[in-house]
Amino acid sequence: MRTPRPNRYRDAWSGDLTAARADEQVRVAGWVHRRRDHGGLIFIDLRDRSGIVQLTFHPDRAPEAHRLAHSLRSEHVLTAVGTVTRRDAENVNPNIPTGEIEVTVDELIVHASAETPPFPIDEDGPVNEELRLRHRALDLRRAGMQEAIKLRHVVTQTMRAVLTERDFLEIETPSLTRSTPEGARDYLVPARIEPGSFYALPQSPQLFKQLLMIGGFERYFQIARCFRDEDSRADRQPEFTQLDLEMSFVDEDDVIETMEAVMSAVFAAGGLEAAPAPWPRMSYDEAMLRFGSDRPDTRFGLEISELGPLFEGTAFKVFAGALASGGVIRGLNAGARELPRRELDALTELARQHGAKGLVWAFVQEDGTWRSPVAKALSAEEIAAVTGALEGKPGDLLLIVADRAAIAAQALGALRLELADRFGLVPEGRHDILWVVDFPMFEQGDDGAWNALHHPFTAPTGDLSDPGSLRSRAYDLVLDGSEIGGGSIRISTPEVQQQVLAILGIDADEAQARFGFLLDALKYGAPPHGGIAMGIDRIVALLAGRETIRDAMAFPKAASGTDPLTGAPAPVDEAQLRDVGLGVAPEVKAQQAARAAGAAAPSTS
Amino acid sequence: MRTPRPNRYRDAWSGDLTAARADEQVRVAGWVHRRRDHGGLIFIDLRDRSGIVQLTFHPDRAPEAHRLAHSLRSEHVLTAVGTVTRRDAENVNPNIPTGEIEVTVDELIVHASAETPPFPIDEDGPVNEELRLRHRALDLRRAGMQEAIKLRHVVTQTMRAVLTERDFLEIETPSLTRSTPEGARDYLVPARIEPGSFYALPQSPQLFKQLLMIGGFERYFQIARCFRDEDSRADRQPEFTQLDLEMSFVDEDDVIETMEAVMSAVFAAGGLEAAPAPWPRMSYDEAMLRFGSDRPDTRFGLEISELGPLFEGTAFKVFAGALASGGVIRGLNAGARELPRRELDALTELARQHGAKGLVWAFVQEDGTWRSPVAKALSAEEIAAVTGALEGKPGDLLLIVADRAAIAAQALGALRLELADRFGLVPEGRHDILWVVDFPMFEQGDDGAWNALHHPFTAPTGDLSDPGSLRSRAYDLVLDGSEIGGGSIRISTPEVQQQVLAILGIDADEAQARFGFLLDALKYGAPPHGGIAMGIDRIVALLAGRETIRDAMAFPKAASGTDPLTGAPAPVDEAQLRDVGLGVAPEVKAQQAARAAGAAAPSTS
Repeated sequence: MRTPRPNRYRDAWSGDLTAARADEQVRVAGWVHRRRDHGGLIFIDLRDRSGIVQLTFHPDRAPEAHRLAHSLRSEHVLTAVGTVTRRDAENVNPNIPTGEIEVTVDELIVHASAETPPFPIDEDGPVNEELRLRHRALDLRRAGMQEAIKLRHVVTQTMRAVLTERDFLEIETPSLTRSTPEGARDYLVPARIEPGSFYALPQSPQLFKQLLMIGGFERYFQIARCFRDEDSRADRQPEFTQLDLEMSFVDEDDVIETMEAVMSAVFAAGGLEAAPAPWPRMSYDEAMLRFGSDRPDTRFGLEISELGPLFEGTAFKVFAGALASGGVIRGLNAGARELPRRELDALTELARQHGAKGLVWAFVQEDGTWRSPVAKALSAEEIAAVTGALEGKPGDLLLIVADRAAIAAQALGALRLELADRFGLVPEGRHDILWVVDFPMFEQGDDGAWNALHHPFTAPTGDLSDPGSLRSRAYDLVLDGSEIGGGSIRISTPEVQQQVLAILGIDADEAQARFGFLLDALKYGAPPHGGIAMGIDRIVALLAGRETIRDAMAFPKAASGTDPLTGAPAPVDEAQLRDVGLGVAPEVKAQQAARAAGAAAPSTS
Repeated sequence: MRTPRPNRYRDAWSGDLTAARADEQVRVAGWVHRRRDHGGLIFIDLRDRSGIVQLTFHPDRAPEAHRLAHSLRSEHVLTAVGTVTRRDAENVNPNIPTGEIEVTVDELIVHASAETPPFPIDEDGPVNEELRLRHRALDLRRAGMQEAIKLRHVVTQTMRAVLTERDFLEIETPSLTRSTPEGARDYLVPARIEPGSFYALPQSPQLFKQLLMIGGFERYFQIARCFRDEDSRADRQPEFTQLDLEMSFVDEDDVIETMEAVMSAVFAAGGLEAAPAPWPRMSYDEAMLRFGSDRPDTRFGLEISELGPLFEGTAFKVFAGALASGGVIRGLNAGARELPRRELDALTELARQHGAKGLVWAFVQEDGTWRSPVAKALSAEEIAAVTGALEGKPGDLLLIVADRAAIAAQALGALRLELADRFGLVPEGRHDILWVVDFPMFEQGDDGAWNALHHPFTAPTGDLSDPGSLRSRAYDLVLDGSEIGGGSIRISTPEVQQQVLAILGIDADEAQARFGFLLDALKYGAPPHGGIAMGIDRIVALLAGRETIRDAMAFPKAASGTDPLTGAPAPVDEAQLRDVGLGVAPEVKAQQAARAAGAAAPSTS
């Protein structure tokens, strides 16, 4: 780190002190990381952002400082003035950069004391997450969070550097805006200037970045805060951060090349070793077939195979029925796994959770026959054919699903991931990155309605009169089985935009009401344009090796959406609501009152 | 600009084409800026983000392109393939970088047509602002907005570069949080997870950045979106952007030196010539006395003088009364101004608008006497003394206010600015920058209550038992009479923080409810820390020479807080409100229904 501007608190960073500065007088400041008393001396590990240095207090050399040092406890804040001193060879600590020296203290100034922290700061072990979030300032002092937040800075500044060098302009779009059409719930913001009316927080800057293209900026990006009021699930946050970008006069290859440059630099800066760009592209259909997912994790095998053709004319009613109703039969070879019946049942249950009617398991035996509940229902030829197709060897566990194609893919995809996790199949340190392309434009719901697989502004290819046949000009970037970004070439004419909205069942009036400002702008000369958005929280979490995006954010909400730190959300004064023309619904008010009364009532237990 | 990645749309930027590339074949893309037909040829000024180049269509050389070019109108979008050709000497246009050449077009591809824009794109003249905001994508194409938005990118990236080089980390703080104590109204966000409860949008990241200091990051910054629901006045926006920073183990000089480095780089990048840092510091008292403002515009004279001592024992009752009640008499010399009575009355009215009971004006006559309504009430000695103190020469207009000190300062400060504006006293191209320091910690309201002049987390100096005597460790940065930023050293112990909150009338329970998370964190070892926040919108507007911050933002709200582009704010479905446990108040609902009925009713005109 750069030498700090000398002041009364410090003139050097703790982590910068090495034997090269032996005998220099220095002034350092920070927190008491650890204290040890030994042989009449007091040793303090002093921690600042740069690292840790050992302070040594001698009763003879500096009796006043030594006396004061007796009062030091973990996390007290201090400045120490002293001399950089080489340690004796036997006291060198090779685990820290400053381990060859210590600072022999002459003067100690205590700036603040600290109560005993509710969890240890000097080790990075697991702590109850609610407690961590409630005392986030303390949690942020711990090495793991310090590293993650520093990495996040490096990631975002790297993104900015690459894009600025490529003539992108960072442009801010509004947070108080109109509902946007990403499909999740909007967070609303009551407007005092028009009581009963609301701004909405943006789910993404999608429409604004398209307006910026129509506005002639040609290369835009933003590290943008986005808001989605989704039911808490998986690893989502009410607010999250995207690298959002858009380009004009481009095709898919241009956006992909740009993002490969950005992410290559990010991986290099974050110490992740991925293959050099250009990265492979896999079609949606291939990803769904081979990996059962549109975010395939290709770091391990267990690929899925189409087995349907092997069962034409089968006597096994389950398989015959699946094929007759337009379904598929697919399977994978889980390898030589010893799994008791209980665990096989658990796998079956997992397949069911993903919609499958069941799961066929089979162990290949030495003689090529199967140990399997369905062994008797299948012909020897069918068993041999499947074993061959899945390259089954004696001891291998084969898993087969017969169902609608989407269900079979999803169930087998989930089984792949479960088995990889269960048996540690992902090679240590391996990272796979690839693009998924050629997505369907629409998918049909059970009610026959068409839904956009990406969003309604994605450019389609194909015949608009046959929605099911359309592909979209979309692309997702997948790292280690996580979708870290996605985008598309957009529709740039009002006619096509209106046709796509019509397919989605959005008539002209509704379209005008919801996206009128985009449709209007498209009439005034929109360039061909496209872009992408990358999930920064997820990228940082992956680079930092953290399980959850909460560990990649300084101040996340809990998984429930509440904030244990500030207590948000919280009730507000009725006057504040009157200002915006609102009131709490009577039944909600009754619940709030009951809770308050319950809290105030004397405990009966 | 960097050469674009060649694709089917373009392989060169329009603005990059010069005679050095004569005879090269190029592919350019953009918008029709202007079209001229002359002598059977068609000339198109093609505009992209880099600049403008002339396309020439010859009927003989490229009959197909020439024929198609007939259909081109302003703002159509196209790609042209052709040869860079030197212009004849008489056709060289010295006003644009590409003026020595043109592109002789062989092939034309039209990507999109455009309706006639509602205002001209090819000139930057005044246009009704509502119209500009409604058609913001078109407004953004105009040269002035293009420049302002590019400048904003340069400003923010420069800030980031200087701070990153100085070991600052950019760290994001939440937008969905708990009410913060800046004193304006919060924007609320109803929470579906706890119906009847609310997040609040942050007025600033103040508390979070203090937590980051307690969390050990030591050097934090953020280009942060802030939200204040203020009554629309002056040049405010519901959401605005700050450069927010905070440092640990620092005093005022450290923060000031850091910001001088940042802003010097910003000024250099933005082409503003200010004095080299370090910049002057002026005390709050001096600024209020000499300039009548805590954001003094020092680019012109008309300084204010204390005249009270000249009127001790005066017979003029108005002045005597002011002094007797603890007030002041102050004046300034407006210089030799010919002002008719009507305009003197307007100045008096201006003084009254700022709370003054009246304004004394006097013209110094050749013989040293005054032409003034109060000439007869004053002694010759008093007149001579005031004339001398204000260095009045014959013809000069003197303006005097006798009132409470704060009122006199405010009224004379406003008169100074009005006169400077009226008579063009600010030298062209002059920029003055200075720090205002030594603010009072509190000011007393008419009800006797103490209010924080900055905010309740600012560190005081002096005796906490005498709130009126306390100064704060705050500093504001003032450019050309606009406050562009401000900050302070913060309170870093829970005891002082609680004392300051108590002076403000915030008892322990309320403090715990509102800022408990900060008070709790302060107990665990807070370092000495301080910081500053800079108003990016204002800085960009000043650098770009724009009157309003709306011209420094891509998508501002109108002055009313509404958004003519998206129609926000807008009513929402009742179901959305039910989800968050709210309802529109009955009287508001009635108003909405009446408006809707009015809109739907057949017109009777």
